[in-house]
Amino acid sequence: MAEIIEGKNPVLESLRASRPVNKIMLVRGIKSDSAISEILHRAREKKIPVEYVERHILDRQSIKGNSRGVIAFTASHEYITLDELLAIPARTGEPALFCLLDGIEDPVNLGAILRTAWGTGVHGIIIRSRRAAGLTPAVARTSAGAIEYVPVARVANISQAIETLKKDGIWITGIEMTGEVDYANVDFTLPSAIVIGSEGRGLSTLVRKHCDTVARIPMKGEINSLNASVAAALVMHWAFRQRMV
Amino acid sequence: MAEIIEGKNPVLESLRASRPVNKIMLVRGIKSDSAISEILHRAREKKIPVEYVERHILDRQSIKGNSRGVIAFTASHEYITLDELLAIPARTGEPALFCLLDGIEDPVNLGAILRTAWGTGVHGIIIRSRRAAGLTPAVARTSAGAIEYVPVARVANISQAIETLKKDGIWITGIEMTGEVDYANVDFTLPSAIVIGSEGRGLSTLVRKHCDTVARIPMKGEINSLNASVAAALVMHWAFRQRMV
Repeated sequence: MAEIIEGKNPVLESLRASRPVNKIMLVRGIKSDSAISEILHRAREKKIPVEYVERHILDRQSIKGNSRGVIAFTASHEYITLDELLAIPARTGEPALFCLLDGIEDPVNLGAILRTAWGTGVHGIIIRSRRAAGLTPAVARTSAGAIEYVPVARVANISQAIETLKKDGIWITGIEMTGEVDYANVDFTLPSAIVIGSEGRGLSTLVRKHCDTVARIPMKGEINSLNASVAAALVMHWAFRQRMV
Repeated sequence: MAEIIEGKNPVLESLRASRPVNKIMLVRGIKSDSAISEILHRAREKKIPVEYVERHILDRQSIKGNSRGVIAFTASHEYITLDELLAIPARTGEPALFCLLDGIEDPVNLGAILRTAWGTGVHGIIIRSRRAAGLTPAVARTSAGAIEYVPVARVANISQAIETLKKDGIWITGIEMTGEVDYANVDFTLPSAIVIGSEGRGLSTLVRKHCDTVARIPMKGEINSLNASVAAALVMHWAFRQRMV
């Protein structure tokens, strides 16, 4: 399945990550800068055809209207299996750090979570196959290129995935506003997985039962939760900070 | 100027915050639940007219297509002055905590920052009047109701606003990936303001010069920054955590 990457930086990240790109389309007369010249250089190196077209032709290809004059046509993003995901930490020599998403539906949130995951050394993300955002072009764009680097496994059942992770010695921390401990008191230097609930409903009852710990994010104010991608970012970055020392 | 609030929870938050609502529109046959019944109860209490209409009439009013059957018509959000903003912390008896946005352009980011600000006890936000997102309905929606509670001042010049804050004894911390100290080492129990740069360009050179400290967010990976609303959230929540003790 072909997929369209829109915008200078996402296209550049795709090329840097050696993602198979079939063609690059630029608007005629586009102003050259360091990103454009790197795109052209990498395209030449990899023998990727570059086509200059009129604005209206480019706009017709654009799905989000975010191309700003640059589009790449690529193969779609692929998921890896849970087993493949579990094999990654061993290769890096680090204790596992995963993030499970129990039904994130907004592509903007999934993209933001991928972006933070990349910046905080998370080895991979596990998403639900039903009623959840998948790896779409909208997610690619919000991820600011991180979609190229962060492996994603898609599973039918998050609770079953948690049990598989547990068998691998991974400690499971669900995040919920009413959690029993502050997430800052969880030891994320152990092999760990962070479970984030859906935007509207949080963790499902079943998934919560499978967690080793349910941790809360301390908050002020009367609004009942943080944005899901912000909640995920706070915990992922805290795990990263613990591991920095 | 009238403004449209779309969706059950944003409408409910507007009513809870006693925001002047001129009319509420519901789709005919909408399924009642606790939020809907609270909306109807509060509307009755405040003598706000409630109108039941066919789906296509409601859809015509909807701007974002996010109404899910509920719309409120309100007066638009108003900005307060910088002086009014500066007077808030004294009333709460807390050391000041503000967030200055040096050109956040994406309404989704501004909404997410308002939401986190509310959850972390930030007294108010200062935004730029030019080339920046303002308090639009899109921001209201992403803020999940926080727009009703977090005061926002809009200024022509962020550097000048910083100087005004400094005269009030407020310590200014700019956030930038190349900052000289880790933000975790900044003392946010002092009267503080956090400065977040724009999505594309970060802090402007001039604004950076006016900061007392420029702090970095430690990161892994090759992507040069976190999403602006995630960066803001990490620092705001850290300030909140320091003040919790």
